[in-house]
Amino acid sequence: MKYTAVIMAGGVGERFWPKSRQHCPKQFLSLTADGETMIQKTVKRLLPLVKLEDIYLMTNADYLSLVHEQLPQIPEENILAEPCPRNTAPAIGLAASLIARKEQDAVMFFLPSDHLIQHEEKFISALQKAAQAALQGEKLITLGIQPTYPETGYGYIHYRKTSGDDVFPVEKFVEKPNLPKAEKYLHSGEYLWNSGMFIWKASSILENIRKYMPDLFQGLQPIVKAYHTAQFEEILYQQFPLLPSESIDFGVMEKAEHIFTIRGDFGWDDVGSWLALERINPTDEQHNYFDGEIISSDVKNCTVSGNGKKIIAMLGVEDLVVVDTKDALLICHKQQTQEIKKILAQLKENQRFELL
Amino acid sequence: MKYTAVIMAGGVGERFWPKSRQHCPKQFLSLTADGETMIQKTVKRLLPLVKLEDIYLMTNADYLSLVHEQLPQIPEENILAEPCPRNTAPAIGLAASLIARKEQDAVMFFLPSDHLIQHEEKFISALQKAAQAALQGEKLITLGIQPTYPETGYGYIHYRKTSGDDVFPVEKFVEKPNLPKAEKYLHSGEYLWNSGMFIWKASSILENIRKYMPDLFQGLQPIVKAYHTAQFEEILYQQFPLLPSESIDFGVMEKAEHIFTIRGDFGWDDVGSWLALERINPTDEQHNYFDGEIISSDVKNCTVSGNGKKIIAMLGVEDLVVVDTKDALLICHKQQTQEIKKILAQLKENQRFELL
Repeated sequence: MKYTAVIMAGGVGERFWPKSRQHCPKQFLSLTADGETMIQKTVKRLLPLVKLEDIYLMTNADYLSLVHEQLPQIPEENILAEPCPRNTAPAIGLAASLIARKEQDAVMFFLPSDHLIQHEEKFISALQKAAQAALQGEKLITLGIQPTYPETGYGYIHYRKTSGDDVFPVEKFVEKPNLPKAEKYLHSGEYLWNSGMFIWKASSILENIRKYMPDLFQGLQPIVKAYHTAQFEEILYQQFPLLPSESIDFGVMEKAEHIFTIRGDFGWDDVGSWLALERINPTDEQHNYFDGEIISSDVKNCTVSGNGKKIIAMLGVEDLVVVDTKDALLICHKQQTQEIKKILAQLKENQRFELL
Repeated sequence: MKYTAVIMAGGVGERFWPKSRQHCPKQFLSLTADGETMIQKTVKRLLPLVKLEDIYLMTNADYLSLVHEQLPQIPEENILAEPCPRNTAPAIGLAASLIARKEQDAVMFFLPSDHLIQHEEKFISALQKAAQAALQGEKLITLGIQPTYPETGYGYIHYRKTSGDDVFPVEKFVEKPNLPKAEKYLHSGEYLWNSGMFIWKASSILENIRKYMPDLFQGLQPIVKAYHTAQFEEILYQQFPLLPSESIDFGVMEKAEHIFTIRGDFGWDDVGSWLALERINPTDEQHNYFDGEIISSDVKNCTVSGNGKKIIAMLGVEDLVVVDTKDALLICHKQQTQEIKKILAQLKENQRFELL
């Protein structure tokens, strides 16, 4: 049975500014001590289960050279550049169509390129379990994550605990909750975090797209027909922008039947902000995460990421995120890492586009 | 009547690290928006009263080129490089001896090179008043500063309020007090801050050195005799290190008679730490002092000094001092600016001498 993976690498994460920039977003950064970038880790951890020739990357023209540079081992024809961002449904539809041309019932792992997973064997075993379930019937499976605290920044999956199996029917996808709701979800034991990772047969997701997103299904046909022809790129650039911009969650998952989830417990982290660094890296006794040459006295709960070229001296501070790069320095209270967009807005207003 | 000035420019201020370095201490930095360095300001504000040819600079070999570069208008023979640091008494003794050779009763203003004065006319008028008093009898006059808050970082002058005159007898010099004492001093109205600025006739201070520091007086003679000869530098380098290392405060002022003070009220600031920047420069509505390209949101009471080459983005922080330079970045809570020496100690330990 063929296992394939489709990795989304078109995102423009702004929350890791000033290290992430429009020309080099988070998935192409290394945020761990081993020096591997997020997307390199994403590909590497799949290799026990998926052959290189069956790994597809959805990106955009701006990042094509980064993808080639960081992942030279991926066959060139597996790297698809979307002409413009149309959310996840068109990307999934296109990838599923191309995979189905080769093998209709191939299992497809749809994965973000910028998440971290601590326990890779557990992750692989969850994917295997999901693949087995996806192969039976027409199940669409989403990887849920066992919540460990009342996070308000994620969507949740309300699932029905059934006995015997590890694959549970999904009752409902729910939006990012407020804190009281998140606490309720956490304690009920009936909710999982929505990781944005999906497993299905190519034929299953295509059938559901045909049913619930007929415009998308129709729009994909000329592109799929042109694959492996000289006109492919031209037709992709003509047709892709006409596809409906929609997420697969809203377009299919919230409407379809046979939606299931698997409880993942493999140390998942979406690395959603600079705060993730202290979760995914070792910290010192004062709960500091220091990357670079840092001299400190009376400093605690700080996350500091240097650029390797400058000494950073810190005295008597706490709860700060400090990120130094060649042309920009960020000093941010930990409670305000979600407000980095305010800085970016001001940079835009000041027409400092080179810093975005 | 000849007015002369002797400016001390040999200090190695560590409290402005990382902008100040061993090879470029505070007096050679510009800490105000006008771009003038501290020592340039010190010379400039004297010009209504003292001719350029009567301004002497005491520095050391390491800073000779900086002095020449920043003060090309000062005659070269007025710039004296101490072979090694011997505190203030030998420097004052040497300068007074050289001045007395030209005119025994010349008035000598002895001044630090790294203080700021807001109201320069008031300062000049205080110097004039002191000079007049110094010319009568053998008075040694110290400029006291009217305290405005209970500072614990300065020495104090206990003086006797006498009526009629503005020149008051000094009862006693007192060491840096603790806070309760500083508060007592402030409210008593009988204490002034010791600014380290002195006014006397060259002959008066020499007579007192002869009396209270006879070793110093004797040791100076061969150096003074060699002045304006080809052997001067050789003899200076031989003899100066043999002079007793002592402050003029301890060696003379605390022992001599005829010690007087004038109450200065001319916006004096010793610019003793990074905290001074917000006193001596305009701040914004959130009490921030920003020098450089800074983008901020929800930031208050911060002092930020960039190096002009990098944007600094700040989010949700307060009470920080941030100083960015080419090779070092300081992030310090305002209450800990006096602890910068801990950073320097660590740099020494790590043998990062190029950063000191």
